[in-house]
Amino acid sequence: MKKSIGVDLGGTSVRTAIVDSEGKILKDLKESSYAKEGPSVVLPHIADMIERLGDISDCEGIGIGVPGPVDEERKVMTLSTNLPGFTGYPITRMLEERFRMPVCVGNDANAAGLAEALVGAGKGRKIVYYITQSTGIGGALIINGKVVSGKHGYAGEIGNIVIDRSRPKINGLNAGAAENEASGTAIGRYGREKFGAKNAIEVFGQARKGNADALAILDRMSYDFAQLMSSIAHVVDPDIFVIGGGCSNASDLYFGSVRKYFDELVHPAMRDVEIAKAELAEPGVLGAAFFVE
Amino acid sequence: MKKSIGVDLGGTSVRTAIVDSEGKILKDLKESSYAKEGPSVVLPHIADMIERLGDISDCEGIGIGVPGPVDEERKVMTLSTNLPGFTGYPITRMLEERFRMPVCVGNDANAAGLAEALVGAGKGRKIVYYITQSTGIGGALIINGKVVSGKHGYAGEIGNIVIDRSRPKINGLNAGAAENEASGTAIGRYGREKFGAKNAIEVFGQARKGNADALAILDRMSYDFAQLMSSIAHVVDPDIFVIGGGCSNASDLYFGSVRKYFDELVHPAMRDVEIAKAELAEPGVLGAAFFVE
Repeated sequence: MKKSIGVDLGGTSVRTAIVDSEGKILKDLKESSYAKEGPSVVLPHIADMIERLGDISDCEGIGIGVPGPVDEERKVMTLSTNLPGFTGYPITRMLEERFRMPVCVGNDANAAGLAEALVGAGKGRKIVYYITQSTGIGGALIINGKVVSGKHGYAGEIGNIVIDRSRPKINGLNAGAAENEASGTAIGRYGREKFGAKNAIEVFGQARKGNADALAILDRMSYDFAQLMSSIAHVVDPDIFVIGGGCSNASDLYFGSVRKYFDELVHPAMRDVEIAKAELAEPGVLGAAFFVE
Repeated sequence: MKKSIGVDLGGTSVRTAIVDSEGKILKDLKESSYAKEGPSVVLPHIADMIERLGDISDCEGIGIGVPGPVDEERKVMTLSTNLPGFTGYPITRMLEERFRMPVCVGNDANAAGLAEALVGAGKGRKIVYYITQSTGIGGALIINGKVVSGKHGYAGEIGNIVIDRSRPKINGLNAGAAENEASGTAIGRYGREKFGAKNAIEVFGQARKGNADALAILDRMSYDFAQLMSSIAHVVDPDIFVIGGGCSNASDLYFGSVRKYFDELVHPAMRDVEIAKAELAEPGVLGAAFFVE
């Protein structure tokens, strides 16, 4: 069976793994990413981690998932906010020279979406739309097992889609952008304003206890999120939406409302689009390995 | 050179043509579609038109474009509002039996988009997003020369995307749906309300003369249309938007504003996405012919 090496590089930690084509993690390591030190420290450390995985002579290549949009042909991040020094940096060069195998790089939400499409909740479906709903909101479009990343790698930057233009502008994203209204950060912000909640986790906890403010926040978020999904559905009409990211751990508290509002916001024939919770524990490193063709 | 037969079937007229793979129309006929008579009249009439095209023995197949979403595998329209009796009707069967060649069917906006992608304004680009802005608003996503039509054929039903949820609900589409705010019909409606205009053409004419009301209508439409495009861009990040349909004949009056607002509504790196006017005079019949692989 085909094997490759996946690298899931984040602002805090980095995971490297040997993965087979069925999505089995054969060996893996997770360590600090040393992101603040810049690419001249981050990348040699990744190379050392790969060597410590053991025998990689039967691996077909290395795939790296990074937090931000990627120009996949030039193999550079076009925008890097959590990895200082990585914008425009030739991420793959050192690893290609050291390991003499193909190295590819892609966006981490695309990696997670690809893994869910190939071996997770979207397995066997032609068009999978993956959404990660966490600190931010990101998406990935996978058609026939291939990621569509767009001209600049910005396909999937759905957090910037306007869901209600009457909301205030609070950062660099559009006023009423989905990420500012339906992400974990947004849930936490509304919880703070309404009843002094610390974060989204507390809002979910209070909702579970029946707190009316918390329930109202989740209901509004569900409508906003459903409207985002409706916009996406009218563009690509997927077989399935797979929802991952931290918020989806509380799926029992809001997926029902999302389903209801989504059905109101699409043409009747589209109401059989499946909405499923992501299945994989480590989609990022798996999907990065799957970047290797 | 490969040849095939294109059929552009509308509620009013039907066009059939022999088309070569470079998009040259070698022979064509345009007649009433007899849509009100239903498929048992419409389809034999199309067959007769195809026979009257002359020698078709070197054609590889027949492609039909129809006004509505299509299940391409089952070869049926899943919703037909302008062609009575066509919802669920086996459109291709009679033609397959009569001509003994492959017959495929697809949505007419997808046909037009495919033609623009292969031989029109989007030629040579990897990801083309085509929008027809006419009586209604429809779209088509073409990746590497192939239409992405979605699970139910509803990819491209972008007229139902909400661009401003505060607008009144006026029909079966969502409140604030793009089609109700930025189509030719919408421009005409706002023109009627503001200064008694008959239709969109009069609004465009008055704008050309400097009428402030007409200019304000087009400015608002441009923002609404740009926001629709921004939503699409964050999902598929196309190389180019190609805008066709009747409104685009007045492109000099509003494409500049659309460009300006679009740039405000996307990430800075996405501002080099091209926005171009459609180039082809008959994209529908060409694209239908290109449905034949």
